[in-house]
Amino acid sequence: MDDNDLDAAFSSLADPARRAIIARLSRSSATVNELAEPFAMTKQAVSKHIHVLEQAGMITRTRDGQRRPCHLDPAALEALTGWIDTYRLEAEQQYRRLDGVLSTLQHQDSKEQS
Amino acid sequence: MDDNDLDAAFSSLADPARRAIIARLSRSSATVNELAEPFAMTKQAVSKHIHVLEQAGMITRTRDGQRRPCHLDPAALEALTGWIDTYRLEAEQQYRRLDGVLSTLQHQDSKEQS
Repeated sequence: MDDNDLDAAFSSLADPARRAIIARLSRSSATVNELAEPFAMTKQAVSKHIHVLEQAGMITRTRDGQRRPCHLDPAALEALTGWIDTYRLEAEQQYRRLDGVLSTLQHQDSKEQS
Repeated sequence: MDDNDLDAAFSSLADPARRAIIARLSRSSATVNELAEPFAMTKQAVSKHIHVLEQAGMITRTRDGQRRPCHLDPAALEALTGWIDTYRLEAEQQYRRLDGVLSTLQHQDSKEQS
């Protein structure tokens, strides 16, 4: 994922309705009609959110006769957690190193005092 | 994290400069001055991004005399991967179930043909 992909992907998740659609699609694929009903959203509103999620690569759509079901792409979600985890793990490692240095210093300090 | 927190957090990551700041802070804490230099950004631009990241709970700032270093919060990043992974794992499980059903059907089909 390049910078434009990451911008679009994170931005697509920064909306409660789109996150609700992702949560719903994680359980099974669904059409715009099937998504609109439980959310009490107009089909137009759902279509707009689906378009944003599709452009961001979070979901794909297939054609099955008249139906055009939407499918969540787990690989796209994994790419995002991959990005976040790189820096989360790096930061955690730095804090652990700092904790290690601090406890060594405290240990030396208490030895010198005794 | 409630919906407003998630909106702010995901939105804060939807910007290449803010992602670069997060990557830099994952290695060590830094002041606005220290962040501005390597990124060839004005201090004003960095301050604005830092404010967005701070409001979104991604970073914290402390006071150390004249210095006000920024620190990445790994727990905030973990909350985001937690949200994403809930639905990623659910979707992956659904796809595996579907694969299982399909391979059972194919197996029955080839047994009936033989």
